[in-house]
Formats: sequence, structure tokens, C-alpha cells
Amino acid sequence: MTVLTRCRRFVISDSLNSAASALLSLKRSPAPLNSKFCLPIFALQRRGIETSMPSMGVTTNKLERFRALFADKSIVKCDGIEAYILPSTDAHQSEYISDHDFRVKFLSGFAGSNAFTIITKNEALLWTDGRYFIQANEQMEDGWTLMKQGLPESVDPVDWMVENLSSSVNVGFDPQLFGYAKGEALVKKLKKVQINAVPSEVNLVDKIWEDRPAASDAPIMTLSAEECGELSSSKIQRVRETLKKKKCDSVVFTALDDIAWLLNIRGSDICYNPVVFSVAVVSLDDVALFIDQKKVAGEAAQKHLAHVKIFDYAEAPKYIGTYHKTSLEKSGASHKMWIPDVTNFFLASLVNSKNIYVALSPVQTMKAVKNEVELQGMRDCHIRDAASHVQFLIWLQKQIAAGVAVTELEAADHFEKLRSQREKYVSLSFDTISAVGDHSALPHYKAGPESGKRIIAKDSVYLVDSGGQYRDGTTDVTRTVCAKENPDADFKKMFTLVLKGHIDTALLKFPSGINGMRIDMVARKPLWDDGYDFGHGVGHGVGHFLNVHEGPAGIAYRMYREEGKVVKGYILTIEPGFYDASRWGIRIENCYEVMEAKGLESGATNYLTFASLTFVPIQKNLIERSLLSSEEIDWLDAYHAECLAKVGPYLQEHNMKEEYEWLQEACKPL
Amino acid sequence: MTVLTRCRRFVISDSLNSAASALLSLKRSPAPLNSKFCLPIFALQRRGIETSMPSMGVTTNKLERFRALFADKSIVKCDGIEAYILPSTDAHQSEYISDHDFRVKFLSGFAGSNAFTIITKNEALLWTDGRYFIQANEQMEDGWTLMKQGLPESVDPVDWMVENLSSSVNVGFDPQLFGYAKGEALVKKLKKVQINAVPSEVNLVDKIWEDRPAASDAPIMTLSAEECGELSSSKIQRVRETLKKKKCDSVVFTALDDIAWLLNIRGSDICYNPVVFSVAVVSLDDVALFIDQKKVAGEAAQKHLAHVKIFDYAEAPKYIGTYHKTSLEKSGASHKMWIPDVTNFFLASLVNSKNIYVALSPVQTMKAVKNEVELQGMRDCHIRDAASHVQFLIWLQKQIAAGVAVTELEAADHFEKLRSQREKYVSLSFDTISAVGDHSALPHYKAGPESGKRIIAKDSVYLVDSGGQYRDGTTDVTRTVCAKENPDADFKKMFTLVLKGHIDTALLKFPSGINGMRIDMVARKPLWDDGYDFGHGVGHGVGHFLNVHEGPAGIAYRMYREEGKVVKGYILTIEPGFYDASRWGIRIENCYEVMEAKGLESGATNYLTFASLTFVPIQKNLIERSLLSSEEIDWLDAYHAECLAKVGPYLQEHNMKEEYEWLQEACKPL
Repeated sequence: MTVLTRCRRFVISDSLNSAASALLSLKRSPAPLNSKFCLPIFALQRRGIETSMPSMGVTTNKLERFRALFADKSIVKCDGIEAYILPSTDAHQSEYISDHDFRVKFLSGFAGSNAFTIITKNEALLWTDGRYFIQANEQMEDGWTLMKQGLPESVDPVDWMVENLSSSVNVGFDPQLFGYAKGEALVKKLKKVQINAVPSEVNLVDKIWEDRPAASDAPIMTLSAEECGELSSSKIQRVRETLKKKKCDSVVFTALDDIAWLLNIRGSDICYNPVVFSVAVVSLDDVALFIDQKKVAGEAAQKHLAHVKIFDYAEAPKYIGTYHKTSLEKSGASHKMWIPDVTNFFLASLVNSKNIYVALSPVQTMKAVKNEVELQGMRDCHIRDAASHVQFLIWLQKQIAAGVAVTELEAADHFEKLRSQREKYVSLSFDTISAVGDHSALPHYKAGPESGKRIIAKDSVYLVDSGGQYRDGTTDVTRTVCAKENPDADFKKMFTLVLKGHIDTALLKFPSGINGMRIDMVARKPLWDDGYDFGHGVGHGVGHFLNVHEGPAGIAYRMYREEGKVVKGYILTIEPGFYDASRWGIRIENCYEVMEAKGLESGATNYLTFASLTFVPIQKNLIERSLLSSEEIDWLDAYHAECLAKVGPYLQEHNMKEEYEWLQEACKPL
Repeated sequence: MTVLTRCRRFVISDSLNSAASALLSLKRSPAPLNSKFCLPIFALQRRGIETSMPSMGVTTNKLERFRALFADKSIVKCDGIEAYILPSTDAHQSEYISDHDFRVKFLSGFAGSNAFTIITKNEALLWTDGRYFIQANEQMEDGWTLMKQGLPESVDPVDWMVENLSSSVNVGFDPQLFGYAKGEALVKKLKKVQINAVPSEVNLVDKIWEDRPAASDAPIMTLSAEECGELSSSKIQRVRETLKKKKCDSVVFTALDDIAWLLNIRGSDICYNPVVFSVAVVSLDDVALFIDQKKVAGEAAQKHLAHVKIFDYAEAPKYIGTYHKTSLEKSGASHKMWIPDVTNFFLASLVNSKNIYVALSPVQTMKAVKNEVELQGMRDCHIRDAASHVQFLIWLQKQIAAGVAVTELEAADHFEKLRSQREKYVSLSFDTISAVGDHSALPHYKAGPESGKRIIAKDSVYLVDSGGQYRDGTTDVTRTVCAKENPDADFKKMFTLVLKGHIDTALLKFPSGINGMRIDMVARKPLWDDGYDFGHGVGHGVGHFLNVHEGPAGIAYRMYREEGKVVKGYILTIEPGFYDASRWGIRIENCYEVMEAKGLESGATNYLTFASLTFVPIQKNLIERSLLSSEEIDWLDAYHAECLAKVGPYLQEHNMKEEYEWLQEACKPL
């Protein structure tokens, strides 16, 4: 799954019809977490239940009702605001958000994952990036203007405000929807141009969102030390050691995967990301968890969280305020609280800025370094995942050969079904990208109810980017295939350049601790040489049965993070691509474990390299052999040999004879 | 010249003897600027005039006298300070500084260019990087402790203060020695840990520095539009357009190369960097220049600066304060001043923080894009420079062959002499790195009076990194040579890996506007493959008859700058290296013009590549041919053919027959 992707499952439209309502209540019922809880609803949603668009009348009315709140002093907590800033995230700065939090979609109609909006008295502006320009134009309701991001002529939202709002005006925003660092920067930047950013206690959207989907109340699941390799108490101890090193006394966590990792719990509050809405405060003495109490009511959960003080989710602000005050009194004002830079601005603002230490969450780097149990789980689940992948590719091949019309959506559903039969399967790790022809040229294409009806024809290029959540790990893999007997020469050339970039990156040896951005170009060089490129990063971190996008490191290309240093034990994807807008797209993605590079001539022991976790064959007749170096061919042959050696036994053990034979053929040397 | 280099000419010791005094006054006399004004003094300095070290008694006394000021309320402007922070720079955040500003050397004895010191009541700590560990240990006087930078166990100065100073203490610093962004960050960071950073009006060192070298008062030189391609008035107009875009009304320049470029003036206040101590304030209506009036007293200078209001250097603070106040009154408090992030903290603090816009200097990106006249000048001066380089290599070869003992210092002097005979020569562009054997393994080696006596023996590896300032451009080139008949296989291997990295980078095609950090690893990959690396950046920007290190872009590896985007018209060096600490070092450096990459298969027109400006042959018998790809060999042969085609005619025109023949031989295909 490409780095910029913020795939979002289909979302029930705000104007709910009864079928969708029924589905929604189904979803809200506490489903067993190790079941494929996302499947039924998504399969149905793909078929269009959520497609009803509000009429223009409703839209106008919505924005009008929204703007009417600008003057409501009891809500905006000032003399009135000239504009409201609404990014598309939740109080945890989640990348994927729940329907409950999808305010931008409610207000604008736009269902893309990346959106930043500013609603003034006369205008409603929505910023999004190139992945979504077409979708935004289609989905945005009347009264909205698209502001394109990432182009040379793009205008920064703050610059837009500076140029279009008068000085000394008030602009409202929901402080829960900003990470502390970003929120502080926004307020400061606006202040410099005499624009007063006023935090609103209640999000203005919530005041007019009548049919707002309820938040999930499904119970948490717990992971044993055998499953994740380290007891929560040990992790907490490590966090405390880090706190002491930085002379901090406590830390607030609002990032949901931080909390899930720290407490060895998982949830189903956000689809694909097995997390649970919660806030945690860890001090040198205790741990307070704020969570919907229903979710932890079970005996197993209570026992698992015996080392944690549990409070209701809504108690977090009060607790933090009181805790801070008490701590200051006790410590003579020297109590220091670590505020991870993404902590929501509202909660962070409850602590005196003199007493905070703002930095990357201490859990981020701990979580990214997988322990041996996690690594083994990742290795194991990738083998099972590859078995399903092989099944899927065979099935697709046979359907096409038999002339059975398979649509993008049907293919995705079938793949999901195959995955769901694997041991320890929980759910998909993101919404499958199942794309034919020019659809595959959109790196973050999402088959809609209509678009997804496109048939995977014999001559078409088909790209499938998908992954699963298993109790022992998370997968993410992209393959581009084509059933055409003699694939076009220009397609083969581009497929091979992408493959070269993938292999060259996988072969790389590099010193431990370098920033991932420094290796991004290895994957691009074969393309750059001919003046081609692709508009997303080369790779991202992957969680262990957690978020498929995980910090702090990636093979980034645009956003530099000081903390993006690559070290041993990280899991990164390598996924170069190439997209010919009107024709087809290519992406080849594996997950890799970052491991020590051994036997170097220099004798250096601080070098790293990649070891693949993904073992799904790469379609050989799409490769233009003459463009590969002998070293690249060696890599490919060795990779395929390893696919057979690793996945073959699994297929044999599970009596998947046809799949085994297919794999043997697919894994022959180039 | 490597990226981390902050070469500094030899500095007259603080305990001046009469010979040095005489030299100093010689230097201070207004020498004609187009003469080789740096030469005599450096040649002599290299021979040891500045080596006399103060005795320990004096040292102790110095620190004692310094610390005695900590309690002097009239100087520290508070109840007393616990420590004083002293970085090694000047009020213009210059990379190279004048003797007049070399306070750290006076106080500590250490003459390295990178130093950050903290003097407490009991300790005196000096932070510097790996280039200088040995030198610092040798030069630091009694009472000083070396704090190593860049190691895993390194301690950040601020962290050191947090851990070693009590809360609520005062720490003094000279606000002129901090750029605004860094100064503000320091004060803020210390404030968070209850350490009060108190700006001192006068630098404490100046209070005890009795024999402080005077500042230069040499006149400026002026560049015509024919020499630099654009009138100052046009440049100012462009700055004003940028100001308007950012809604600013004025901008303060303290970076000396910004001012030199903007006004088309050059100076000799800092050796190697042809700049003049000055401050400039550009508003939408006028330009104020603060400069020692003696330097602009000449008729030509007056005429050249007719569009500028000239004030004495010392007037800048008063002017900025008054100007700011008046502007606010006129504008109704909306006047906004652009404060480049490196503006000295003292001057920037005179402006209300509400009225400043802190960003990269608008001149930085303008200056980096060379116009056609500047590019042609750069091309021309590199050909002349190459002629001298060829002369030098022949001379060296002959000396060695004849068994004449040539020392590192003598070689550097001779090279300087050869360069100084070229048309439009002004000075060196940095202190020549002339290094034999393990000296060459120090990327920033500076031959001292003793170390520089080492002979360039036949079997030795010799590295020479040098460059010139010419009226039409600036050069910077490194060659590693060896007269041994059969160079060692392991040396040849490493030389070839470095060369591969150089060539691969030079061959690169990349999209315009990418950050230079993203291409750094191309030069390293051949080394990384065997577990080798080098500890400096791959390349830096180069000014046009200006600083040899110029922002905003470089091929950086460690420090990421958002503004480090590479675009057409930039000049960058490519200079990978390899350093085997106990034996030898290798570096191969050329200057390159960043230009459009044409004829790409994709048809893209936004791709860039490098065209060499430097045309000095690379010693072929040091190359292990089997390690080069055919593409790399083609590059090398084409490069040598171009050396002959470009430098050959110059040699012929100047009757340098022997050099021409040598060049013909050196430029034959590999």
C-alpha cells in the first residue's frame, strides 16, 4: 500500500437509508474481534448502499446551518468567527478515521482521506492532493471549491487566510483535531498575521450533524506475551526509563497504536486499524487508561489490565488537568510531562507549557523495533497470506481463461474471502485496491460502486494492493499482473524499470541509522534515467498486528522527519511504481525486515540490508530480461526460489496441490 | 573542498610577537583587491609565526579574568551569571571569520573552525567535531575539556547545561553570535528548563582581549554589470517583489555574501571570502548600507553605491530600532520586516516579534541561480584554474622524479603562486589542503608549521583540495595523486569506488526541485556495497566570485534543509571520498553546473543533470578498470576529451607546450 495512501473503507452516507441503518447497527454490535468483522458490510457497501448523494438543497442548507453557528457566542466562545478550520482527522490524529468522526465528508460530500477545509462566511474550500482531484470534483457538494495541493501553484491554507481574511478576525477550530506541534504552529502563524485562532469546545459540525453514526463499543482483545513477545508491564517500564532520561515525570498518549502496543490490547473502533479509542497517561508510578468502560468489562480484559487504572474515556481532560495541578503542587512546580508531538492540542493545552516536553512519542521508536516474537509472527503470517495470494492469482487466471467476467469489486471480495480462511485472520489491513487499466494508474484508486464494475479483461493490466491483519502480524503487498499472451513492449519496459528499482532497493546495504529519505532514490533511478517518476514514497513502516502505516521511519521522498532513522528490526515496505495516467499503473510491493548486512569486505558490523517478508511470485513474462543486470536477475531467481521454499511447504501441508504446482512454475528461474 | 570544511587561514596568535604585528599591519593596509592579497602573510604564517602558545600560567589567568566578569553586573546586565556561551562565529554568522572575531581561539587556544564553548565557574568546555579531535586536544589550553560532537555518546550543549547547571540560574551569551532562529531556539529551550539566557551587550571576551587584532579597513571593490550580469538596482527590485509577495515592507541583511551579491560589491575583510563587514536594510523605498565609511570613500565606490544610503557600520542597531518605530507609527503597526533566519539575534531582537517574518533570506535562492554572465565567468575561470592545476601536477611530478624533497607547505605555496599568475586572479578561495599519506585521511587537514614539513614522497598518496577566487568566478577542486609506479591494489580499489560514486552522481538525471539530500547516496553506493563510507557531504553550493560554500542547496547527508532544493543554474560540487585513517585519504572533487537534462525518452523537460565546470584530468593509473561499468568508462573518456578540448587551447594560446603535451597524454582514453 503506497505511502500516501490513506485508504478508507466506504462510509455510510450521512443521509442514511434504512438498509444502511440496519447495516450500521450490525457493525456497531460487538462482533468477535478475531472474526472477519469488516467483511459483510464492506462487501455490501461496495455495491453502492452509500452512494446516495444529498441533494443540492440539503447541501446549501447544511453549509448555511453551519455558518449560522459562527455568530453563536455560546458555541464559538468569542464575539463570532469569520471562518472555521476543519481538518479530516479525529481526536487521536488518526490516519484512518471512524464514520463517527468523518465530519468533512458529512459537510462537503468528499470521502477522500486527505482533506483540510476552511469554511468562511462566503466560501467553503477543500484542500486535497493529486490522488483525489477527480474524486473531489465529483463528490464535493454545491458551494465547495477544490484547492489543489502539491502543485507549484498551490496555496497553503494559512497563506490563503492571510491573503483573504481581514486582520484581527477570529477563526474557529477544534483543538482536538490538531496534534500539539501542528496546532501550536497554526495558532502562532495566524497570530503573526493578526488572525486570532479560537479553539471551539465543541466541533461546530457536531452541532448540525443529526444522523451522526455512533462510535463503536466493541470489546477489546488482549494479546498474551506469547503472541507479542513482551509484557505490557515491561513496556511500561521501558517507557519510564525513557521518561527519566529526559527528566520527565509522565507522558500522555493519544495515538491509538501507541496505546494498543503499550498495553498489548487491540480493538475494532477504526476499520483495518485494530485499535481502540482511548487515552493513556503513564507516570513513574501508575498508568491511567481512559476508555469506554463497556469495552473492557470482560473478565479477561480486566485481568489483562490489572496493572492499569481504568477511567471512562470522557474523564481524560479532567484527570489530566487535576493530575497536572496536583503534581505541580507536590513537586514544587517541576513536574514535567512528555507531550508527544501528535497529542491532541486540546489535551496538551491543559498542561502548562512550561511543564511540557514536546517530542516524538517514546513509544514510536520502541514499537517500530520488532522483537523476535513479532518478527516471527510477521514471517509466519506473510507465508499464510502468500498462500491466499497464490490462490487468488490462480483463481483470477482461470476466470479470465474461462471467459468469466470478473469485476474489480468481485476480485477484491474473492481475495478477501480467501484471506479470511487463513489461520489467525482478523480483517483486511486496508481497503483492497483492485484496479484494472487506467484505474491502476491511480496509486490510491478505490473501486466505487460504479467504477468497480469494470471487468478484468484478458488484455488488461490489473493491479492489486492488499493486506491482512492476523493475530500474529500485518501484511501489505502489491502485485501487477496481466493475462495477455504477449504483453506490450512499452508496458514490459516500464514494469521492468519498476522491478529494477524494487530489486536495487532490496539489495541495498546501508549504514544503520541513516534517514530513510536518503535511500528513496535507489528505487527511482532506473525511472529517472528515462525521465519517469512516481508520485509517492518508496516505503512505509508496518505495525505488528497494528496499523499498516507506522512511524517513525519510512523510505520517504517529500516529508523529512528527523526521527526517520532506519534501524535493525524495523519493517518497511518497498513499493516503487509507475503510472501512465491514461493507460495503466504498475506497482510492485513487498514488506521487508531490516536486518544486519553480514560479511562485508570492510568488516563493518553496523550495516543493514533488507530481508523480504512477502513471498508472492512476480509475473515473469512481464519482465524485459535484457534490461536487468545479472545481479538483478540473481536477486529475482533467489527470491522466487525462496517463495517456493517458504510457501511451498505450507501449500503442501494444506493439500493445495494445484497451488503448489502453479507456484513451482511461477518460481522457476527467469 | 568538502562540505563540512570550514577551512580557516592561519591566525596570528593572541600573544603577538613583533614580526606578526608587522604582518598584521601589512594585512590591514588597504591592499589592492585584485592582487593576491592573502598570499604573503599565509606563506609566512604557514611557517609558524602564529605557533607560539600562551603559557599555562597565562591561560589560567585568562579564564580567571574571564570568569571574574561573571559577577560584574554592569557587564552581564543581571545579578551575575553561572556560565557564558561562546560559539565561534561573528556578528554575521560567517562560516569563516576574521582574526578580529576569533574569540574562541583567544580564550581556548583552539584554532579549528567549528567550536561551541560553554565556560562555567568551574569548567570550560569546547564542542567540536571529529575533524578536530586531535587538533583540539593539542591546542586547547589548560582548564579546557573537549566535548566530542557527532558520536553516539555525544552530549548536546543544551542538554549538558540542563544536567549540570542548577535551575533558575543565569547564563550569559552574546546575541550577535547567534542567528535569529538558533538564538531564539536556544533561549526558548533553556527557558523550558528554567535557565535564564541573558544577552550581554558586550562580548565578555572583548573585555579581556587586550591584543585583539583590529578589523580590516580595506576598500571595497565593485563589479560592473558586464562582470556579474545584473545591476544591483535590478537585484534590489527583485528583492522588493519577493517582499511584496510575502507582505513584507523591508528586510534586514547581515549575511555578508547576501550583501555583496545584492550590491555587486566585494571586499577583503575575511580571507578567502571576498566580502565586506556590513549590514543592509532594504525597504520598498530605499536601501541603507552600514559599513566602515573608509571602505567606500573612493569615487568609484561612491558612484557604484549611488542608489544606496550609506551609514557607518555601528549605526545599524540605532537605525533599525528607529526605522522600525517610525514604520510602525506610519503604517498603523502593520509594518512587517523580513528577518532572514541567520540575521544576528541582537539586530533581529530590535524589531517587535509581532512584526517580523522569519525565513530564509530572499537573496539566498536568487544568488544561487547563476545568470548567464556568471555561468560564463565560472566556466572561463575554471579553464584558467585548470591550466594552473596542470602546471602544478607536472611540477610536482618532476620534483618527485628528480628526488627533490617537496613538503606539503611548499607544494601548497607553489600551487598558490601558479594560480596567482592567472588572469583575473584575486586570492585563494580557501586555505589549500595539501596532504600526504595519513594526513590526507583527515578530510579537513590543514598543514601546520610542523606537520606541513612532511615530504611528498614517490610512494605517497597526495591529496590537494584547493581553489581560487577570480573576478569572474570561484573554483574548488580536489585531486588525489600518487607517483608510485604500481599503486597498491587496495588503494586502487578504493580510488575506483570513490571515482564510481563521483561519476554516477555526475551522470544522474533527476527531477528539478528535489532536495539535494535525496541524491547524496548515489556517490556512496559503491562504497556502501562493501561496508565503506565517508563522513562528509557529497557536495555544496559555490558562489560566483563569492563564498566557496554557498546555500541554500547542497548534496547534504546529515543536516536537512527544507530549502535545499536543487534547480537549474545552481553550481554544486561533487566530492565523494574515502579515508583510511592510518594510511591515506582519497577525494575526487569537481564543480558542476546544474543544467537541463535533454532528450529523455519520457519527453519530460523538468529533469536536470550536471555539466562539469572543472577540467582537470583524473590520474588514470590509479583506476582499477575492471570495477567500472562501460557507462562509467564512457563518462571518464568523454570527460578527459573535454578537458583537452577546453583547457588545451588555453595552454596552446599561452605557449604552455609541455603542459599541453602532458594534458594530451593525461586525457587519452582509459
